[in-house]
Amino acid sequence: MDLNIKVNEKNHLDIGGVDAVEIAKKYGTPTYVIDENRIRDNYNRFYNAFTKYYSDFKVFYACKANTNIAVLKILEEEGCCVDAVSPGEVYISKKLGFSGDRILFTGNNIKDDELKEVADTGALLNIDSVSALKRLAKIVDPDGMKISFRVNPMVGAGHHDHCITGGVMSKFGIMDSEAVEVYSLAKDLGFNPVGMHSHIGSGILDPEPFKLAISSTMDIAGKVHQEADIEFEFLDFGGGIGVPYTPTENTVDIDKFAKENVALFKDKLKEYKMNNPTMYLEPGRYLVADAAALLVSVNSVKQSYRKFIGVDAGFNTLLRPAMYDSYHHIVVANKMNEENTEEVDIAGNVCESGDLFARDRPMPKIDEGDTLAILNAGAYSFTMASNYNTRPLPKEVLVSNGETIVVREEQTYDDIFEKQTMPEHLK
Amino acid sequence: MDLNIKVNEKNHLDIGGVDAVEIAKKYGTPTYVIDENRIRDNYNRFYNAFTKYYSDFKVFYACKANTNIAVLKILEEEGCCVDAVSPGEVYISKKLGFSGDRILFTGNNIKDDELKEVADTGALLNIDSVSALKRLAKIVDPDGMKISFRVNPMVGAGHHDHCITGGVMSKFGIMDSEAVEVYSLAKDLGFNPVGMHSHIGSGILDPEPFKLAISSTMDIAGKVHQEADIEFEFLDFGGGIGVPYTPTENTVDIDKFAKENVALFKDKLKEYKMNNPTMYLEPGRYLVADAAALLVSVNSVKQSYRKFIGVDAGFNTLLRPAMYDSYHHIVVANKMNEENTEEVDIAGNVCESGDLFARDRPMPKIDEGDTLAILNAGAYSFTMASNYNTRPLPKEVLVSNGETIVVREEQTYDDIFEKQTMPEHLK
Repeated sequence: MDLNIKVNEKNHLDIGGVDAVEIAKKYGTPTYVIDENRIRDNYNRFYNAFTKYYSDFKVFYACKANTNIAVLKILEEEGCCVDAVSPGEVYISKKLGFSGDRILFTGNNIKDDELKEVADTGALLNIDSVSALKRLAKIVDPDGMKISFRVNPMVGAGHHDHCITGGVMSKFGIMDSEAVEVYSLAKDLGFNPVGMHSHIGSGILDPEPFKLAISSTMDIAGKVHQEADIEFEFLDFGGGIGVPYTPTENTVDIDKFAKENVALFKDKLKEYKMNNPTMYLEPGRYLVADAAALLVSVNSVKQSYRKFIGVDAGFNTLLRPAMYDSYHHIVVANKMNEENTEEVDIAGNVCESGDLFARDRPMPKIDEGDTLAILNAGAYSFTMASNYNTRPLPKEVLVSNGETIVVREEQTYDDIFEKQTMPEHLK
Repeated sequence: MDLNIKVNEKNHLDIGGVDAVEIAKKYGTPTYVIDENRIRDNYNRFYNAFTKYYSDFKVFYACKANTNIAVLKILEEEGCCVDAVSPGEVYISKKLGFSGDRILFTGNNIKDDELKEVADTGALLNIDSVSALKRLAKIVDPDGMKISFRVNPMVGAGHHDHCITGGVMSKFGIMDSEAVEVYSLAKDLGFNPVGMHSHIGSGILDPEPFKLAISSTMDIAGKVHQEADIEFEFLDFGGGIGVPYTPTENTVDIDKFAKENVALFKDKLKEYKMNNPTMYLEPGRYLVADAAALLVSVNSVKQSYRKFIGVDAGFNTLLRPAMYDSYHHIVVANKMNEENTEEVDIAGNVCESGDLFARDRPMPKIDEGDTLAILNAGAYSFTMASNYNTRPLPKEVLVSNGETIVVREEQTYDDIFEKQTMPEHLK
């Protein structure tokens, strides 16, 4: 199995050299636990794989996956750049030390004051529509301002149809057929269009769909290069590189992935007689998904028409199983050596029947008081959490060189109601 | 059409006597707008319908639908009680003036310290499992403590399979077959079991599934009354009464709904020779869904392979369309008199292709700058909002007797990161 699971001599789950059961005991549950070294390893494995084949290469972390400030700072230290999708993501990245040239902003349906706010930070704007281009031209002085465009490569792939971002159904990007015209318009408006961006989806474990995307995007870029006379400084193929979530999925062979995709990229550069633009990729999940787990406690075992294992978190804490029907592997952190003996439903504490982390999941015998670890909870997990059912957002603990550090305190009830005011007539 | 839509003389949407376009201009977008009088009307229509046929009747508002404190306080003033599903909901209800006897707590997979916390408030605990009963007996002094049990009525209905809460697949309640035994056990432990609760689902517009639930629950209650010698003080049939979301759905005929269900309830009381317990119902959606709209602005119109109308909110702001594929009716607040002329996709600003409020929706011609109102955004809307994509939670404005009052300020970026701390070694 390719999942990132380590077990210590007590047969407990090990996270970054620390006993997960001890973490649950010390900090309570539910708690997200983030493994600093795993993030560093993921980044370096990814970066090295691509630079081996093409040195002009930069990684832009798709920070919507996880905006914990420690996670962002770890990647900042490693030299990573940021792919931001909102003014708030640009704001926090700047605050943490990412300079404007290390932030690429790709917004969708962005309003004028947000465009202005982001332009003022020095982040590079990756424009998603003709509407945004024309509005930007009125808001800023375009004089030589570097921008890029997101194009729709007409190729889609991913783990859920909500996450397939290329193709005719997609709201993202300008059409392939209008690319030459849009780049020319940008030049006419006084901008300096230096980049092209595409993104096909999310959770991709195989080089093949990614090669289709590179091929298709390079054909659009080549045409723009030749017909609109654009010399690209960078070409950005987005993210979407997945990690195994189930025990039967395999880790991406990142060397093969890099080798094949870079080879195709180089062929296309030659075909269209382009110089050597920097290659950008925007991994999110790949860098952080397997670097965190959500620890929860079993508080009730119920034998109803089915067997339910009740835990102290719900889809307010981790939305992916309820929203995308996503599989998250779950282990009993205090019984790592025990065999699976029964199939159970693992249920959350939200008052909604869809609040299940797993259905018919083979597990060892689980007792009240056991600690479960919901794995691969580093991406699209905390960032999608809510206060539904008036549940406070949980704690986050960073494991760093064998030490545990609280990097986010749990909310209080009063925090949840902080921004509200009772009108006078109801007092 | 039975949707709660009013139009003023300017052909703008009217919310509680105020021009929605003016609200958007004054407070910005996205903003949730809540109509105080509509909540009062909904409550009184519901309460009066049932008390007409059965005077021992109480309404417990399922506050997970909307925990805005003004909403809670309005219902408190009307005499409504609260159905709470978490300690946080009990906390805020107590703080707003609901006494313990006006709060019924129905938890699912609740841990020991939460059971204790809720018991200490004086709220009545509605127990969901044998596990919780046994744990409660160890935590509190059961001596005569009033409790009730949630039973699984083996009937399910609702607008989405995530929201069908009765039947063999459901994590909720004790089994019909074990009810007598569980009530007897509760008595043996020293508790005073005075109520029974069931809940079949959500978004029900028709009396028929509800009648099945009442019938099935009354059969369980009757058996418990006779075999475990329980004299019920109340019988609670949960909520789930829906509102029309689409233009072709009809409003529930609440008089007919009350009349038929109360008649059945009375027949069953007679059949099982039970005294006159109070009838509880737990509407959430019915009371608040059509009392709020989400106002958003159109910031981009994109003609791609499809036509996309881009707005300044996303599924972080209103999750139901992306999560449950829910239909929310959308109107152009500044063009209420215009005919539909085209079919468009209405897209949010989240970086995910599933971030659409509507697909192929017939609409009048929409321009950038138009104000859209996403209707029926009073239930399961703000309460499910998140900071995904580092988007601040939006503002809420209450319309009260023709005045607008901000009842929730928009979050700042710093609010989003407030509970986080950077570890020393990363500073």
